[in-house]
Amino acid sequence: MQRIESLERLKQEFQKLPGIGARSAERLAFHVLREPRAQAAALAQAILDVKDHVKHCGTCFNLTEQDPCAICSDPQRDSGELWVVEQSKDVMALESTGLIHGGYHVLLGRLAPLEGIEPGDLTIDALVARVKGGQVREVVLATNPTAEGDGTALYLESLLSGLGVRITRPARGLAVGSQLEYATPGMLESAIRGRTPM
Amino acid sequence: MQRIESLERLKQEFQKLPGIGARSAERLAFHVLREPRAQAAALAQAILDVKDHVKHCGTCFNLTEQDPCAICSDPQRDSGELWVVEQSKDVMALESTGLIHGGYHVLLGRLAPLEGIEPGDLTIDALVARVKGGQVREVVLATNPTAEGDGTALYLESLLSGLGVRITRPARGLAVGSQLEYATPGMLESAIRGRTPM
Repeated sequence: MQRIESLERLKQEFQKLPGIGARSAERLAFHVLREPRAQAAALAQAILDVKDHVKHCGTCFNLTEQDPCAICSDPQRDSGELWVVEQSKDVMALESTGLIHGGYHVLLGRLAPLEGIEPGDLTIDALVARVKGGQVREVVLATNPTAEGDGTALYLESLLSGLGVRITRPARGLAVGSQLEYATPGMLESAIRGRTPM
Repeated sequence: MQRIESLERLKQEFQKLPGIGARSAERLAFHVLREPRAQAAALAQAILDVKDHVKHCGTCFNLTEQDPCAICSDPQRDSGELWVVEQSKDVMALESTGLIHGGYHVLLGRLAPLEGIEPGDLTIDALVARVKGGQVREVVLATNPTAEGDGTALYLESLLSGLGVRITRPARGLAVGSQLEYATPGMLESAIRGRTPM
């Protein structure tokens, strides 16, 4: 059986990526083989650039190429309002709405005792220090509406409640655009309990 | 809206790969961001290595890292038997059976008049030259059993039929392991016309 070493190795490397099986890895490897070298080199360079240029902001721990990040160093942002999220993807999701005028604090995860993820593994100390710094008026605990996200929010509330800031969390209820018949029990419960006058 | 340039660029590069949409590209980019740099560098290097080390064998046009390829330079191979296929993947498929003792000739495509792919675009001249070289006894036209593959085989037969070699093609019929009720008309027709005594 004939083997082309570098092609086999590329297949193996592609296969280590999430969601890429043996078939996809082969298709990708052959695609790279056929495309112009400049195109393949651009992909290789982009991979290295991400590793070399992207880091965590020293203030909010969001992903950034500069420290402090563009949001933390933006004087237009309201530093009195802090949105606490689990990960950078959540910052991107919130930013995409254009509705957030405050800053962020990325926990870099959530408390998960079963996985051994404890407060010391997250950026909680830095959050408490930022709040104690005195500029913050409101902390929005925007962790995921899951058991672990809620547990993390509850823990953070216990830490921050004595520090004289307003502590809130995003509204919950029916997903806009969804259908009532397909709503989960959790969605329905939050919608019913949190019903508001029209 | 905050943008991390190198992360955006990696997403775009991933999205140029076949079968990778915006969502997958984002997932892959974040995976690269999280994995150890050595792992990301291995992927980047594997991409470049394929471009730099893999070429076509000057004799059979199969993909190889050395020229002539491992098959063409193997003295154990029967150079009197030539399997003509459309692409390198077909060589791999045939080789995986362990049943081929001859050599190959990769056409690097098939005739497709509608796409403007003509005889001059394939490695047909080189095939004719190899057959005229005199060592070849049998040419197996193992192009795909499709309209274009069959058309290509027919054209090759017309070129090679005067050169004193045996010209054959792989057997057709029911796919082993398939079910009769799901067989296509083409499979059934070839199975019926080509029926053999038990």
